[in-house]
Amino acid sequence: MKRNKKIARSDCPINFAQEIFGDKWSLLIIRDLLFKGKKYYSEFLNSDEKISTNILASRLGQLETDGLITKAIDSDNNAKKIYALSQKGIDLLPMLLEMIAWSAKYDDETGTPAEFIRQLEDDKESLIRDLIAAL
Amino acid sequence: MKRNKKIARSDCPINFAQEIFGDKWSLLIIRDLLFKGKKYYSEFLNSDEKISTNILASRLGQLETDGLITKAIDSDNNAKKIYALSQKGIDLLPMLLEMIAWSAKYDDETGTPAEFIRQLEDDKESLIRDLIAAL
Repeated sequence: MKRNKKIARSDCPINFAQEIFGDKWSLLIIRDLLFKGKKYYSEFLNSDEKISTNILASRLGQLETDGLITKAIDSDNNAKKIYALSQKGIDLLPMLLEMIAWSAKYDDETGTPAEFIRQLEDDKESLIRDLIAAL
Repeated sequence: MKRNKKIARSDCPINFAQEIFGDKWSLLIIRDLLFKGKKYYSEFLNSDEKISTNILASRLGQLETDGLITKAIDSDNNAKKIYALSQKGIDLLPMLLEMIAWSAKYDDETGTPAEFIRQLEDDKESLIRDLIAAL
């Protein structure tokens, strides 16, 4: 957190968020952890958007520094690192759901399943509970 | 919109949003229009974060291309351009309010007024109505 305080351009809450994830990649990693059950470096690397390995390593390190994700040794394989969301990362879920609703409205080629949008419109709170329970 | 379709990295809705405003500046301009009543180039330029004039011009042009803002000649002064949010831009409000709530929770030096957070927690729908009515 110290890093952000030092370079903060203002005390605006939207600026605070943008200084942490105001780039084209960070929220895709959060998405992979929140919605796709991904946990390993190689899984993030294989996402559709084809992040490069150096950007992925850099963004993972920064997200860890900013306290949005944690990194641990995988108990099934000591050579592997396993990533998980912190509470601070999980708490981005309501914002991401609003982002999904906005994109689904304005992208006529959206990949968002209609059923997901229906759930989001009908009962966002239970959708949030279900998604968190699945982590 | 064609531009985004052409370069879209995936059909993911979070990626769709990040391709439009996944940078450190775009949402600050949207913020200035949504929450601060700013309408003119010089007003955006004077925001706390000290955006440079070339980045501001570039982001305004891109936001207009992406259909989030409109640009018109100011009826009070034909030499000035006046910027406004489109419906697509206004529809970012629920997402921005979730972003503000998240930042207010995690930034212990946040500039967000406590009263605003209270309103956001108690009755988000009426806060949204009030903010849109003030545009």
